Amino acid sequence: MNFSVIRGLVALICLFSVAGHANELPLVEKHTYTTTDFALFSGKRLAEVKVGWESYGTLNADKSNVVLITHYFSGSSHAAGKYRTEDPSPGYWDAIIGPDKAIDTNKFFVISVDSLVNLSAYSPDVVTTGPTSINPATQKPYGLDFPVVTIRDFVNIQKQVLESLGITGLHAVVGPSMGSMQAIDWASAYPSWVPRMVSVIGAGQSDAWTTAALEHWALPIKLDPQWQHGNYSKAKPPTEGLVAALMLITQQALHPGFFNQQGNTLNYRPLEDAPLQDITANHSIVTWLEKRARARASEMDANHLLYLVRACQLFVTGHQASLAQGIESIQAKTLFLPASNDLLLMPYLAKNAHEALRHAQKDSDYIELTGDLGHLEGVLDIQEQRHKLKAFLEK
Amino acid sequence: MNFSVIRGLVALICLFSVAGHANELPLVEKHTYTTTDFALFSGKRLAEVKVGWESYGTLNADKSNVVLITHYFSGSSHAAGKYRTEDPSPGYWDAIIGPDKAIDTNKFFVISVDSLVNLSAYSPDVVTTGPTSINPATQKPYGLDFPVVTIRDFVNIQKQVLESLGITGLHAVVGPSMGSMQAIDWASAYPSWVPRMVSVIGAGQSDAWTTAALEHWALPIKLDPQWQHGNYSKAKPPTEGLVAALMLITQQALHPGFFNQQGNTLNYRPLEDAPLQDITANHSIVTWLEKRARARASEMDANHLLYLVRACQLFVTGHQASLAQGIESIQAKTLFLPASNDLLLMPYLAKNAHEALRHAQKDSDYIELTGDLGHLEGVLDIQEQRHKLKAFLEK
Repeated sequence: MNFSVIRGLVALICLFSVAGHANELPLVEKHTYTTTDFALFSGKRLAEVKVGWESYGTLNADKSNVVLITHYFSGSSHAAGKYRTEDPSPGYWDAIIGPDKAIDTNKFFVISVDSLVNLSAYSPDVVTTGPTSINPATQKPYGLDFPVVTIRDFVNIQKQVLESLGITGLHAVVGPSMGSMQAIDWASAYPSWVPRMVSVIGAGQSDAWTTAALEHWALPIKLDPQWQHGNYSKAKPPTEGLVAALMLITQQALHPGFFNQQGNTLNYRPLEDAPLQDITANHSIVTWLEKRARARASEMDANHLLYLVRACQLFVTGHQASLAQGIESIQAKTLFLPASNDLLLMPYLAKNAHEALRHAQKDSDYIELTGDLGHLEGVLDIQEQRHKLKAFLEK
Repeated sequence: MNFSVIRGLVALICLFSVAGHANELPLVEKHTYTTTDFALFSGKRLAEVKVGWESYGTLNADKSNVVLITHYFSGSSHAAGKYRTEDPSPGYWDAIIGPDKAIDTNKFFVISVDSLVNLSAYSPDVVTTGPTSINPATQKPYGLDFPVVTIRDFVNIQKQVLESLGITGLHAVVGPSMGSMQAIDWASAYPSWVPRMVSVIGAGQSDAWTTAALEHWALPIKLDPQWQHGNYSKAKPPTEGLVAALMLITQQALHPGFFNQQGNTLNYRPLEDAPLQDITANHSIVTWLEKRARARASEMDANHLLYLVRACQLFVTGHQASLAQGIESIQAKTLFLPASNDLLLMPYLAKNAHEALRHAQKDSDYIELTGDLGHLEGVLDIQEQRHKLKAFLEK
């Protein structure tokens, strides 16, 4: 617990110093890539696709210094820096992306792309295509008429964005969580593009456990009477279902160590008077979790969450019959950085992929992140392995 | 995995042999205990309380051989034996309760009581009082007018049942999961009654993590449009919300080891065609989980689930300000049997209670159950520690 307090303080201090540095760097610009008649892995096609992207550092003359960052479930392409001087915090991996950092923007052109069906459909800083987009056939939002999309489709749109910049290969692909799925799928689908792949808090496939676990994120949305089988209006969305889903996601992405720390700051006691006297009252720790979720929900879309769940449920490296088949084509050196106390994508998932690669005589390395944040270690505490990451990328 | 297969087969074989034995034993009888004007821990009162109870073995002359079993969240007093020869399976702990078993009915009078707000409100073999009961003030079901009840209230009604049989002390109290909360609360509230306490897959309190985690079981029910703030009719209950809650509970009570084993039997593949082509279709592993939940839901009540969640959220040993305060009064020798890979009540919860007892110079022992069932190790695989349990009870 003492360790947590210290690390919490250190994290706060780092955040301020990061913010200080970010102010001195050029502000990040969001770009939009648009394509038409986009072929999906399922065989269906999308008449139009728009996605946002952003980059840090400078593309070199022979376009050989590209590091692609693939983002997590509730994330966006905003991996580093700030859009506006007044932004309260920089992109999620700012601790490792920047001049002289683990992913050194003095050397690398770092780029990231908003996923299809991005959760933050209503964020002014996200550009995505999904169920909230207008279906050209009806001139109304797609809703559930939007086709199922896969991690491979995320990869394929990223490849188009890169090709539109004249890029024909990567120095590395690096991604956390759902981003790890994209990273290893890149290595399998386009091996000649990918000499290095880093999977952070990741998985080589969604196993039976994970596919079922992800379904619990979808169920509250489908229960919300305002969901209306996906045909809700922007004015009357299934907010309560979305909030319940986000509460579950947040808890599963954390670990008791951090959570009970938070409980202490709220002076948590099991025998609180309001919930003892009233079945409809909540413990303060539940209210804390709900408030966080509700604040995040305002820029998010419930149908988009369902499609992201599905993309993750369908995931297996290479989108083939098995993980073993999917890794056969991989040429990249791979590095797995799971978190020891991850309850969402437990370390065995990364280990299984790592061991499958080793079994197939590939060059793979595996180190666990420690700390008490659970899954979020890979987002909020990745700097713990910054030296390893830097060495891996610069080897 | 091979170990799992073997243990699965062994479990099946045991089940058959248990069934064989059970047929030779006298059938178990359900009794009903009724009391009026029952004072609750909250300060409120219930005009009438009825609970079911059952027993195995014979009460000795001086009534000194009583072992009380306190049941888990979705369980009932049916810990051992069968009600009817044709019942497909015996009570949940039949592997350890019976003649010459760990809890030896040649020596002990083993008794268990249905909890208040029991989840299986519509089971013909459960007698309980809760939101489905008729409120004498309105002659309609209580719904959310039913007062919040606590683990202490479960303990107090058990004490009345025992006293109605002339019992004034226990040989031991033994309970799994929510039953462990009752067991340690017994030891704290009525120390002169309890010389021995066994906490299986248990906790000494609901910490901030657990209180928040339990809330996710309540949320799907509250989202179901048929819930109607608890004022639903028996003919139109919030079944979908209840099914979603049970799906989550089942998954959290298990572990990837067992779950992926189940996936193998279903020939699990992430890239199933139906969910790839249709956002409303499910993976077969999700359908498996849902079917199990739906089958169980038919005898269960959604409001009762909300009240059970609340009783667990409010729990701290002794129902005092802290765990440390609650354990002060305990005189019992205590034994903690958490499961190493429990994801629902992780072993640290039992360890914290055990260490608090040791710190207070009490006699406490702690051994982890192993195996790949997660939390359910303590229900389905408790016989792993049958020798330890037998020795503890007969010392």
